[in-house]
Amino acid sequence: MNIILLPAQPNDEYWQINDPRQLAHLKQYLNVQVGDQLKIGLLNQARYLAEVVEITEKEVRIKPLVQQPVPAKLPVTLIVALPRPKVLRRLVMDSVSLGVDKLILIHSYRVDKSYWQTPFLAKLDEYVQLGLEQAGDVFTPEIVLEKRFKPFVEDRLAIWSKDRPTFVGHPYAEQRMPVAFNQPCQVVIGPEGGFIPYEIDLMQKNGCQSMSLGNRILRTETAVATILARLFS
Amino acid sequence: MNIILLPAQPNDEYWQINDPRQLAHLKQYLNVQVGDQLKIGLLNQARYLAEVVEITEKEVRIKPLVQQPVPAKLPVTLIVALPRPKVLRRLVMDSVSLGVDKLILIHSYRVDKSYWQTPFLAKLDEYVQLGLEQAGDVFTPEIVLEKRFKPFVEDRLAIWSKDRPTFVGHPYAEQRMPVAFNQPCQVVIGPEGGFIPYEIDLMQKNGCQSMSLGNRILRTETAVATILARLFS
Repeated sequence: MNIILLPAQPNDEYWQINDPRQLAHLKQYLNVQVGDQLKIGLLNQARYLAEVVEITEKEVRIKPLVQQPVPAKLPVTLIVALPRPKVLRRLVMDSVSLGVDKLILIHSYRVDKSYWQTPFLAKLDEYVQLGLEQAGDVFTPEIVLEKRFKPFVEDRLAIWSKDRPTFVGHPYAEQRMPVAFNQPCQVVIGPEGGFIPYEIDLMQKNGCQSMSLGNRILRTETAVATILARLFS
Repeated sequence: MNIILLPAQPNDEYWQINDPRQLAHLKQYLNVQVGDQLKIGLLNQARYLAEVVEITEKEVRIKPLVQQPVPAKLPVTLIVALPRPKVLRRLVMDSVSLGVDKLILIHSYRVDKSYWQTPFLAKLDEYVQLGLEQAGDVFTPEIVLEKRFKPFVEDRLAIWSKDRPTFVGHPYAEQRMPVAFNQPCQVVIGPEGGFIPYEIDLMQKNGCQSMSLGNRILRTETAVATILARLFS
């Protein structure tokens, strides 16, 4: 946690931290004392430097000192085949901490249908908060679930791809993912085992470009970090 | 598992897969049948395309057909502060799958001394195998543990840094990590909470260069993928 992210606070001289997870982090991990300075975020508002003014069993009272800059988002819509429930938390957290502006989780032939029933999908807000706290960001990205592959590609991706390119990570593509592209774009990453040829064809017919990441096959989260670092550098 | 990695095999027409983890993957996940083709690696030797010739309860017999290219390593020595035991598995696996040539786990002020006692450190070979199987690689990188920070920096890093640069990922550095460096180098990544100023100073005095990754703070594994994708692209 590199920033303490709070909900909207009263227009008051002092704010309160009373979330048990955040209190535990402050007391046990950071061992905060009155007078210490903390990095604070107000969700979807702004980031501040604040000073600890009082510590009780149930809360830490702080006084905002000065506003601080929030890291910019990457101008990217990241589209990922819904991963195994175990991987979902890290994938969302990492995508948010890397600064993705919009995240779309899609169905694909090799996504097990049971993944859409996982209770983890109800925890997306929590994973987003963890990603923001990791990166020091305060703005929640939009997250969208698209359970039908074909309509998503034909009705949405096809239109978006006219305005800004859509790069599909595909191990067997001939072209390499661009370096330092630094422009708005969509990025699509397949499931474990990859997209099937029909899916790759459908995306290509709808304006997407398949791009290779070299001849090493990476885990989904590792591929996300690798592609974003390559495109935005 | 994108390749089945086997120990050395007899100089024979047929080879055997009898590791329970690999058998379970082949039977339950891939549902292999006689006649199917598999990507096979012989550890530290070569990679092959092979054909399944017989499936029994306790083994899958295969016939190597043709040798295939092994993905090249990155010419990088990755030096990482020993992470929490929970993170160690993914860190080693990802570093190996990304193609790191040599991995050094070091002590640092913010590395809890108890981390050096974790039983997970006895499992490094297993994590390396998982990383190789993920990437389709067969060559194990060298892994070194360095429990004393100062002698490591003064006696080793200082000397290596004369021949090829050492880049230290540091959130508050002024210069940004180079893009498409594509030359042999060392990369150093600190612990959660970062290196302390004394450690940064000592590394700089010994020929290392601090480089920023922008104003988002990333998890260790995410930082590894991001830095390597930026340097080698």
